[in-house]
Amino acid sequence: MAEPVSIAVTGAAGQIGYALLFRIASGAMLGPDQPVELKLLEIPPAMDALQGVVMELDDCAFPLLVNAVATDQPEVAFEGVDLAMLVGSMPRGPGMERNDLLEANGKIFTVQGKALNDHASRQVKTLVVGNPANTNCLIAQNNAPDLDPNNFTAMTKLDHNRATAQLALKVACAVDDIQGLSIWGNHSSTMFPDLLNASVSGTPAMQAVDQAWYENEFIPAIQQRGAAIIAARGLSSAASAANAAVEHMREWVTGTSSVTSMGIYSSGAYGISEGLIFSYPVTTKDGAHTIVEGLTIDDFAHAKIKATEQELMDERDAVAHLL
Amino acid sequence: MAEPVSIAVTGAAGQIGYALLFRIASGAMLGPDQPVELKLLEIPPAMDALQGVVMELDDCAFPLLVNAVATDQPEVAFEGVDLAMLVGSMPRGPGMERNDLLEANGKIFTVQGKALNDHASRQVKTLVVGNPANTNCLIAQNNAPDLDPNNFTAMTKLDHNRATAQLALKVACAVDDIQGLSIWGNHSSTMFPDLLNASVSGTPAMQAVDQAWYENEFIPAIQQRGAAIIAARGLSSAASAANAAVEHMREWVTGTSSVTSMGIYSSGAYGISEGLIFSYPVTTKDGAHTIVEGLTIDDFAHAKIKATEQELMDERDAVAHLL
Repeated sequence: MAEPVSIAVTGAAGQIGYALLFRIASGAMLGPDQPVELKLLEIPPAMDALQGVVMELDDCAFPLLVNAVATDQPEVAFEGVDLAMLVGSMPRGPGMERNDLLEANGKIFTVQGKALNDHASRQVKTLVVGNPANTNCLIAQNNAPDLDPNNFTAMTKLDHNRATAQLALKVACAVDDIQGLSIWGNHSSTMFPDLLNASVSGTPAMQAVDQAWYENEFIPAIQQRGAAIIAARGLSSAASAANAAVEHMREWVTGTSSVTSMGIYSSGAYGISEGLIFSYPVTTKDGAHTIVEGLTIDDFAHAKIKATEQELMDERDAVAHLL
Repeated sequence: MAEPVSIAVTGAAGQIGYALLFRIASGAMLGPDQPVELKLLEIPPAMDALQGVVMELDDCAFPLLVNAVATDQPEVAFEGVDLAMLVGSMPRGPGMERNDLLEANGKIFTVQGKALNDHASRQVKTLVVGNPANTNCLIAQNNAPDLDPNNFTAMTKLDHNRATAQLALKVACAVDDIQGLSIWGNHSSTMFPDLLNASVSGTPAMQAVDQAWYENEFIPAIQQRGAAIIAARGLSSAASAANAAVEHMREWVTGTSSVTSMGIYSSGAYGISEGLIFSYPVTTKDGAHTIVEGLTIDDFAHAKIKATEQELMDERDAVAHLL
């Protein structure tokens, strides 16, 4: 049997963590022949609940799960890990000021970035799920100067999947018929879901829908989907976020033939400010992600991409003291 | 692509349902080449939450999920279904009398049994997860006289997995090294986890542990595991129960080479009262379950099996008016 892959998950006793761990341990992320070790991080008040989650993992008798460690120490959770899934964060709550939000997350992600820098595998692949995901990832990456910035990513796969599903619903096709769709920018209400480079069964997607629907219905629906889920469930997206995290990591590790979306370190491609964590259309192979080149960016798309870039630059300015 | 398998899940917006649906839709239950249709049943007050769950299923863009229907009508949920996973039930709450519990569940499972009888596929495979699972299954089966009683089962796979994991922990082996272990009787604190017929890497399990540990630590730990999870998490088992349900159905549909545990309709094997829904050691092949024959039942095991049988007979007497 293969050597186990060591995987850290933070916020492991939270709703997304709970939806995520059992899928990882069952083999859904890395396949049915890949043993895994889970290193689960929580804050001290959640350690009892986390112990209960570990008991439930035991109760599944997963053949692939060789070990599950529960800890409130980042340096323990990240020791030697191959994959780090940073799910826990302080989301914006009612009445919370922007500075409170940034300070709370700054504390979490500076500490975790340093712990990754000092303790993780030198090839650790890091995915930030906890919001604000792009800027949390930026903070972690900047606090891990010894690691390759290309190994820090933020999740826009949930937005990617939402956009795919809504387009499939609109044009009454199977999700697999859609290719080339992607998400640009920030995982926030400024994200730009790009149908201009998408196809449906080989035909350009924009031939199947009209511009007014795209601009006035589709884009706002994707941007506001998280709020719509909360309104219906009374809880934020958990299982769908966990599913996207599984797919993000699976595609990153095992490769994919079709275009997906990842928030990655910008080296300036498509004119984006260098060093931002920016979602691009990417493909993956042999554990590396590559930006899709030569895409059509019309004036409409350019304005949308610049707007989400500006938001990320503003966020970066606000956390400059943590970088 | 294969024809979709139509799967009803009741209690679909509850904790177990939420942990279950995404695993089914991702292919974890029936494999990566089998499309599925989900027919999700909830009670009217939970329909908004269920709509949110369906939105999250959409947001996963699962290629295998061809449709997800949300309804509060059993006859809609069960129309033509191939598999029925009855997760929703009224568990015993604080201060709830036995008769209240039986009446509440009697109402649910008589209605659902009749709806399965009148609307489901003639080969529908039914799994009852909602507690008290064996007697809820008994009620449903008795209200579906046109269906094969062998197609009604209650879940003891969670107990089976818990016992496997705890034995593996005790003897420091991999879970796959354990064979022949099983659960007899009721999914309740009287269940009998059988190590007498189990082996560890080919050696009898009882050579690796002593009788005092087996009787005084192992059996009570498995019988009381659900309460231990609640004490740690503050919530009852959900993801581990969902995982067991996935495995129960997968093994039933696709077959397994090793012994597992299922609550099935008793035709009198091992002297158990005919017609009870009783957990036995079984193997599965071609969509059918077969009780393992010729097992060693010593005096200790016989007494334990008779005690759990007696509990199920008492439960049957209490719901006799519903059968």
